[in-house]
Amino acid sequence: MSTSTPPYDGHRLRELAGELIVNIRELAQAGWTPATSSNFSRRLDDRHAAITVSGRDKGRLKEDDIMVVDFDGAAVGSDHRPSAETLLHTQLYRRFAEVGCILHTHSPNQTVASRLFAGAGRIRIEGYELLKAFAGNATHEAAIDIPVLPNSQHMPTLAAQVDALLDAQPMWGYLIDGHGLYAWGRDMAEARRHLEAFDFLLHCELELRRLGARAGM
Amino acid sequence: MSTSTPPYDGHRLRELAGELIVNIRELAQAGWTPATSSNFSRRLDDRHAAITVSGRDKGRLKEDDIMVVDFDGAAVGSDHRPSAETLLHTQLYRRFAEVGCILHTHSPNQTVASRLFAGAGRIRIEGYELLKAFAGNATHEAAIDIPVLPNSQHMPTLAAQVDALLDAQPMWGYLIDGHGLYAWGRDMAEARRHLEAFDFLLHCELELRRLGARAGM
Amino acid sequence: MSTSTPPYDGHRLRELAGELIVNIRELAQAGWTPATSSNFSRRLDDRHAAITVSGRDKGRLKEDDIMVVDFDGAAVGSDHRPSAETLLHTQLYRRFAEVGCILHTHSPNQTVASRLFAGAGRIRIEGYELLKAFAGNATHEAAIDIPVLPNSQHMPTLAAQVDALLDAQPMWGYLIDGHGLYAWGRDMAEARRHLEAFDFLLHCELELRRLGARAGM
Amino acid sequence: MSTSTPPYDGHRLRELAGELIVNIRELAQAGWTPATSSNFSRRLDDRHAAITVSGRDKGRLKEDDIMVVDFDGAAVGSDHRPSAETLLHTQLYRRFAEVGCILHTHSPNQTVASRLFAGAGRIRIEGYELLKAFAGNATHEAAIDIPVLPNSQHMPTLAAQVDALLDAQPMWGYLIDGHGLYAWGRDMAEARRHLEAFDFLLHCELELRRLGARAGM
Repeated sequence: MSTSTPPYDGHRLRELAGELIVNIRELAQAGWTPATSSNFSRRLDDRHAAITVSGRDKGRLKEDDIMVVDFDGAAVGSDHRPSAETLLHTQLYRRFAEVGCILHTHSPNQTVASRLFAGAGRIRIEGYELLKAFAGNATHEAAIDIPVLPNSQHMPTLAAQVDALLDAQPMWGYLIDGHGLYAWGRDMAEARRHLEAFDFLLHCELELRRLGARAGM
Repeated sequence: MSTSTPPYDGHRLRELAGELIVNIRELAQAGWTPATSSNFSRRLDDRHAAITVSGRDKGRLKEDDIMVVDFDGAAVGSDHRPSAETLLHTQLYRRFAEVGCILHTHSPNQTVASRLFAGAGRIRIEGYELLKAFAGNATHEAAIDIPVLPNSQHMPTLAAQVDALLDAQPMWGYLIDGHGLYAWGRDMAEARRHLEAFDFLLHCELELRRLGARAGM
Repeated sequence: MSTSTPPYDGHRLRELAGELIVNIRELAQAGWTPATSSNFSRRLDDRHAAITVSGRDKGRLKEDDIMVVDFDGAAVGSDHRPSAETLLHTQLYRRFAEVGCILHTHSPNQTVASRLFAGAGRIRIEGYELLKAFAGNATHEAAIDIPVLPNSQHMPTLAAQVDALLDAQPMWGYLIDGHGLYAWGRDMAEARRHLEAFDFLLHCELELRRLGARAGM
Repeated sequence: MSTSTPPYDGHRLRELAGELIVNIRELAQAGWTPATSSNFSRRLDDRHAAITVSGRDKGRLKEDDIMVVDFDGAAVGSDHRPSAETLLHTQLYRRFAEVGCILHTHSPNQTVASRLFAGAGRIRIEGYELLKAFAGNATHEAAIDIPVLPNSQHMPTLAAQVDALLDAQPMWGYLIDGHGLYAWGRDMAEARRHLEAFDFLLHCELELRRLGARAGM
């Protein structure tokens, strides 16, 4: 491929990279990306996504730390290595034309909740006003189950489990045991709203358990 | 209505909008407005209030994210949609001429306490120096009950419950179950002082319960 | 008294006010001065101290929010009202010529610990490396007792209790039940070091109790 | 020694000092260096290290707060006193040519964990994705033991215990009881990644114990 004519819109890439960098820095400052973990992406077009390069400090990202992959997860026009979990991003872009942004973080709430509920395989959240933050929910009188998948270093295994979950139910995110949270949305604003809602609701549920206010744990 | 002569003081609106934006950004940075939740208002005159537009990211507010409503909750001179909970603001401006500012947030302390004490319908706070932060209190040898209302998506139902509480007692704030806190005061400084005092006192009470220092919970 | 010749060094006052404002803002941002609470002072000379004016937002202090009092607690050259707790500052400046700075804050750790240990009247801290932060301590193999006084709105009562404690032991700070912490030192650097050490050690002790690692609580 | 020809590269010293100051300020703002505690160093060459001067406020470091020591811990070209724990830094530089950066902090998680697990002498961490943050680990299906040493004011005693641990196993850090954490790496980026991973994993393990999810504690 010629470097002078990349198979995507370079102007849009720079815009998305700038938006990613600003948002990721805020998440890093909140302590949600410890030890260079976590990865983030935006749909570039119907065949490409912009995604963070593997192993970079998320509080210090520069434009060069965002690269392009196709929906098979292969680097496009770059020698950098994309995140090892790229397949978990591209499977969502392939499956849902309306998904435009995917955020994967490792906050303490997310990681602790993933371990606590790994045995159950899910954590039920109900009765919170903030359930309205999820696209399509209009009331607190709702319940959602956040799935908790077993961790794996084999991405096709994780991707197949995610696909099976998506066949069975609509959802805006999932946990991986001992690992962290994936959340997504149509654009950055919606994906961040979903991510913040998940983390807040997990925080409240963990606090209620510390306070002894959840039986049968 | 003519756009050239709004039925309120445009200069005062800009002043209040600036004050709201600065204060709301600080509350957002503290994590009290997760996932675009929460809403905030200031009395503009004896018939109008400035209030946040529904659904905006509270850490990134611009002047255009503050709109005017009348005390029936109808938008004035704007196509934006005011917060769904506008009625809970305007009922206080209508009832109390001295109320000048209303702050509604969703901190983890507020939401967790609302769930923990929803059954009791109130949480008693006593013996804290910070009780002096509430206008009219001059000693720590006092007790207040923070009411906890059941949540509802029907604002007239919530407003009627708030009115019934106000008929029975003076108060500077209340919780809604699974939702958050409303606090108010004569101006921004007093409303923030009340808001911070409520959150701090709820924080202490939750911590004492985690430490096993509150019996009969 | 003539306004043109104040009975203290105006240049030193402005220096100390600047130092106080910078340090207090950092403590406010840490959440240790909720709801306009807390107060702070610096020795100006052998008869005067600079102290925060009552009721100001500690995150937004300006030079005008620092005033001068004599060691009887009376305002000097100012119409402002000094902190209601001024006597707890001046008693230390009168008693110890080497005390140059007094910091009183209301962090959650301080307030929660004060309530938890009010019955015992003190909290023992031992075995921490950070005990070396207190002037005069050279080893972790030490123990200190942080006194917890009952709260009172009558400052002479509190001051008399503090004097009785100081007659019996050297100390760099004390708690007041439901209220907060007083800490002091020879200058701002030492007073802040003591303040931070107290808060850190209280934090650790509270955490160990939440973890069930302190028996006989 | 002539002040005009120091036995190290002055340009590299200034570079490392700048890097140390920026990174230490971030750790100070996170609350990991309370009360002027903690110390930090970088390898300068095969005989010298740059290290923080004893007792300075880690949130306000200037270039003059970084000094040079040789690998016996003696100050080189400076009248400042290096950190009392300098020997714990130089023993690692002497032993491992590839170690380029050592970070010692006192976060609440680190200090609380050190006390909780001092009796066991170690804390086992397993099953976390973030174990991959440690150089050489490629999977979450791993376990590490973080050693917990008894504290001592006698540095040769501590250094001998560290050497005995290093004889028995590879490791990237250790805790000292009631004190804090030492972590290291080939450069600042790796040492910070290790430090953040240790703190995050200790945080999660403490939270799981607060939630009652670790038996036999």
